[in-house]
Amino acid sequence: MVTTIRVTVWNEFRHERHMTEVANIYPEGIHATIAAALRKEEQIEVRTATLDEPEHGLTEDVLQNTDVLIWWGHSAHGEVADVIVDRLQQRVLGGMGLIALHSGHLSKIFTRLMGTSCDLKWRVGNDHERLWVVAPGHPIVERIGQYIELEHEEMYGEHFDIPQPDTLVLVSWFSGGEIFRSGCCYTRGQGKIFYFRPGHETFPTYHHPQVQRVIANAVRWAAPTYRTPLIYGNTAPLEK
Amino acid sequence: MVTTIRVTVWNEFRHERHMTEVANIYPEGIHATIAAALRKEEQIEVRTATLDEPEHGLTEDVLQNTDVLIWWGHSAHGEVADVIVDRLQQRVLGGMGLIALHSGHLSKIFTRLMGTSCDLKWRVGNDHERLWVVAPGHPIVERIGQYIELEHEEMYGEHFDIPQPDTLVLVSWFSGGEIFRSGCCYTRGQGKIFYFRPGHETFPTYHHPQVQRVIANAVRWAAPTYRTPLIYGNTAPLEK
Amino acid sequence: MVTTIRVTVWNEFRHERHMTEVANIYPEGIHATIAAALRKEEQIEVRTATLDEPEHGLTEDVLQNTDVLIWWGHSAHGEVADVIVDRLQQRVLGGMGLIALHSGHLSKIFTRLMGTSCDLKWRVGNDHERLWVVAPGHPIVERIGQYIELEHEEMYGEHFDIPQPDTLVLVSWFSGGEIFRSGCCYTRGQGKIFYFRPGHETFPTYHHPQVQRVIANAVRWAAPTYRTPLIYGNTAPLEK
Amino acid sequence: MVTTIRVTVWNEFRHERHMTEVANIYPEGIHATIAAALRKEEQIEVRTATLDEPEHGLTEDVLQNTDVLIWWGHSAHGEVADVIVDRLQQRVLGGMGLIALHSGHLSKIFTRLMGTSCDLKWRVGNDHERLWVVAPGHPIVERIGQYIELEHEEMYGEHFDIPQPDTLVLVSWFSGGEIFRSGCCYTRGQGKIFYFRPGHETFPTYHHPQVQRVIANAVRWAAPTYRTPLIYGNTAPLEK
Repeated sequence: MVTTIRVTVWNEFRHERHMTEVANIYPEGIHATIAAALRKEEQIEVRTATLDEPEHGLTEDVLQNTDVLIWWGHSAHGEVADVIVDRLQQRVLGGMGLIALHSGHLSKIFTRLMGTSCDLKWRVGNDHERLWVVAPGHPIVERIGQYIELEHEEMYGEHFDIPQPDTLVLVSWFSGGEIFRSGCCYTRGQGKIFYFRPGHETFPTYHHPQVQRVIANAVRWAAPTYRTPLIYGNTAPLEK
Repeated sequence: MVTTIRVTVWNEFRHERHMTEVANIYPEGIHATIAAALRKEEQIEVRTATLDEPEHGLTEDVLQNTDVLIWWGHSAHGEVADVIVDRLQQRVLGGMGLIALHSGHLSKIFTRLMGTSCDLKWRVGNDHERLWVVAPGHPIVERIGQYIELEHEEMYGEHFDIPQPDTLVLVSWFSGGEIFRSGCCYTRGQGKIFYFRPGHETFPTYHHPQVQRVIANAVRWAAPTYRTPLIYGNTAPLEK
Repeated sequence: MVTTIRVTVWNEFRHERHMTEVANIYPEGIHATIAAALRKEEQIEVRTATLDEPEHGLTEDVLQNTDVLIWWGHSAHGEVADVIVDRLQQRVLGGMGLIALHSGHLSKIFTRLMGTSCDLKWRVGNDHERLWVVAPGHPIVERIGQYIELEHEEMYGEHFDIPQPDTLVLVSWFSGGEIFRSGCCYTRGQGKIFYFRPGHETFPTYHHPQVQRVIANAVRWAAPTYRTPLIYGNTAPLEK
Repeated sequence: MVTTIRVTVWNEFRHERHMTEVANIYPEGIHATIAAALRKEEQIEVRTATLDEPEHGLTEDVLQNTDVLIWWGHSAHGEVADVIVDRLQQRVLGGMGLIALHSGHLSKIFTRLMGTSCDLKWRVGNDHERLWVVAPGHPIVERIGQYIELEHEEMYGEHFDIPQPDTLVLVSWFSGGEIFRSGCCYTRGQGKIFYFRPGHETFPTYHHPQVQRVIANAVRWAAPTYRTPLIYGNTAPLEK
């Protein structure tokens, strides 16, 4: 009954190639670090894809064989082709899980699925972040304990212009005085979506074991169920 | 403290001009019937707008002076200009209420705010509809009683591909065997959105006093609060 | 990683002993039928408990070794000792899953966890029920298709006085003209709760393969995650 | 159409009589301060009630003439008679609004309506609190701006063992490192419930104009709609 979950980790992969500061932390790219962590998990199969590949690495074939897509993007949201965004949206509505990380809040696919601006406050300073678990029985925070502590992170502050999450799992405290809804669950169509805040490119956040734990948990949570084809359109009355 | 709510009733206004069957029920258009009912309400001010007016009657000026927009569209969703949809979305996120009626589920503005296909099953047959109140304390169903009974209506059936409503207020029973989430509340940005199912153009649904009651209640519910300008972007740390 | 889920199926077990009509359908009791179906599932371990056992079969030891409790009760809710209800509530808040079936809506444990009256309309007549899936990606309706059809069932009708479900999964259509929120998910404390409507004692509902499928799916959904002990009370400031 | 909202402000009223520190801040009692602020509002009528009055000041007659009940209790939750709690619960389910303040999270009426322990972390230290608005279009935070700043308050920290709010309106940041869901909306039966965190008796919190603004807004939000008597129990089939 338990089957393998096929994950595609997508990364813009620009900062790592152009900024030494980032390359030092993620020499193979953020996607490679996330993928390596997931490969240690049982029954998860991982591939990666990046912006500058043909079709951004997100061909029909890749997506048909992806159960959960992880998304990291920041400076080049506008370069993602609309036709690919259409394809992603169809796949999520059809059941593919989506985990949007950090600055992915402004990605075309996330804002399209949310219907809002997804705007927020931010500061690249010297903030300390503490992500508090507010839904302790939720599978995404299994084995996380009370909170995750990140010594240095970019601050994201409210108001975060998203629809109220179906389930709010984590809320961040920042030393500079702000709070943020940092772990947010949604269902859109048959697809499950998790937004997870941390992961600015100049900090080693994706090497943090608890951050990796949340991402792996989220992959299991977002994996599609067996999908019955849905029927829409003109229909005859039922008996009785 | 109580101020006037400025409503704009928007209608595609095509069926009424081209189909005798519809013109007989709504000689001045569906918008005129809805507007006339709202004009009987205290502290509601009503104007109308239709697809074939310049800018579909939805100029910046009209929208800046609209607190709640009511939307009926069906056969010409594709003719609504994207630039107007952008404008509508900005206004809803900024606080304008939106009431999407019946076939408005597939309008560009509604699907954009939902992020899903908003598809459903349908049948123009001889269905009897009963809209059951499932949230009896909600202001939208004030003075509605247990249910609304509509002798003849088009059937809309599940699965309805919408995000789970923030509040589900009404669920329809159809004699042909289906059910439907018929009264659905959302907040997007600072704007409140209500989807209300009934109102096929070939039935006199918008003349029904309880249907008019729900629409008037929804106008009051969706009216914006006093809006504080929101602040996004780069921000300095706060004291303490 | 996948471990066995330990289920206790609890039944009032009175109707089956006193009414031939019921005994003919469930000769060993409703609990035995539900347990037998669950025993066919991989990695689910099942025991049963009934009202007239000492401590209603729900000793501390049994509950400490129960991951998910299934509850069927009807005519003797008042005979369930409050001290056992306290124990059940503690266990649910601590992570034990609870599946309340049919007339269990008025059980002490369900109403206590809901905080409302959980009252509803009902009719033991000749109703036909069709449970429509409104959340097709949800694990509880995996492999269910569009709806479950039950030829004969007791009717339960709205208003059902429950808190709005965290996720609404199924809505029933009844031939007599009513609808009902039939599959309702909640989280209380660390515990997951599923209310599932069908199962009047005079109908063979728990022999129905799709009803059994929903219950088995719900068991998997409601199984606790690994539980971190929660910390409450007086606390020192954190560093930073 | 706009009618007067009848508010009863209930207070345990013990600290103010026994602790000079508290009496200095609230010489007439916390209830008197809250009541005085509400009396400045249009179309709100206020009375008060306290624990040591007969029936705690909450007779049938008082409650039948109360649209919204505000509750402050702390050290004597156990002294509130269960028969009065039953009465309160019936009234809330029947439509009376309830605003539970601060340590009221452990009051019998609030925990009964929630179904959970409502436990939390706390610290009476030297914390600075900032309550961030996360639902800026919500009527409860009308004219509040981005946040409320309280120089000195008791800390309440997560995990707060409540059902996930129907709408989360405010989240607190504390200088000691914690966050807290500080403004939480629920509906139970026909009644609206708002939990609002601030207000430790040793701080002048209820003199703060924005705290008063939130309470007044919450009164308007929680006021009952016109109530249709609900019908439960055995029912005949409907026509069609």
